[in-house]
Amino acid sequence: MSDCIFCKIVKGEIPCYKVYEDENFLGFLDIKPINPGHSLLIPKTHYQWVDDVPNFGDYFEAAKKIGLAIKKVLLPQAVCYVTLGFLVPHAHIRIIPRFENDGHKDGLNFELYKEVSPEEMKEIAEKLLNFGK
Amino acid sequence: MSDCIFCKIVKGEIPCYKVYEDENFLGFLDIKPINPGHSLLIPKTHYQWVDDVPNFGDYFEAAKKIGLAIKKVLLPQAVCYVTLGFLVPHAHIRIIPRFENDGHKDGLNFELYKEVSPEEMKEIAEKLLNFGK
Repeated sequence: MSDCIFCKIVKGEIPCYKVYEDENFLGFLDIKPINPGHSLLIPKTHYQWVDDVPNFGDYFEAAKKIGLAIKKVLLPQAVCYVTLGFLVPHAHIRIIPRFENDGHKDGLNFELYKEVSPEEMKEIAEKLLNFGK
Repeated sequence: MSDCIFCKIVKGEIPCYKVYEDENFLGFLDIKPINPGHSLLIPKTHYQWVDDVPNFGDYFEAAKKIGLAIKKVLLPQAVCYVTLGFLVPHAHIRIIPRFENDGHKDGLNFELYKEVSPEEMKEIAEKLLNFGK
């Protein structure tokens, strides 16, 4: 869709901190992270909701690859996989590391943004993108 | 694990409002729903984290079956798929319908529980379990 911000990222019209790419999916850091390393995985083709994406299982298998990289690079307690879908109408899985005393308690607070500098974002993205290569 | 509440549900030692079952996974209503129809899908074998579960893709494909049933039975705006994992140390995917003006805004508020009577829980569970049969 021509006015979709995520489609523009796929086309390279808007830059991103890329963390993963394969034939069907693109992963990048959320620019408003609720924890450092918070990534998004989108299908390159436009679908509104995650469960509109064909091969839903493959989509989550790809998300797990990012989750694994996050675990190895950032050493969180765990990684959460979350789909919400009300801000950008292009399917996206949020892959969110959890750290001790990160303020999210037993759930996740989607209004608790963390300050991550552009330098840190770049460094984290490069480490995640290159993980396993 | 003998002291795990979800393992006890798998073994039938604790009752549940069942919404889905196959060889590997069991789905049931969350007894503290943040929206009516809020379901959990667990592996029958004990794993702590969702990404410890083998065949992660198949696990989410099963979750999508519950999501589809929720969409057809409860007519939500959308269905969210969420893993958090800090309350019960047995892997679980939360499958949560979103409704207009449900109070969750753009995210999800994991402290905003909804009153659903046992009768309603039973009715919802039966409809989800029998969907597509």
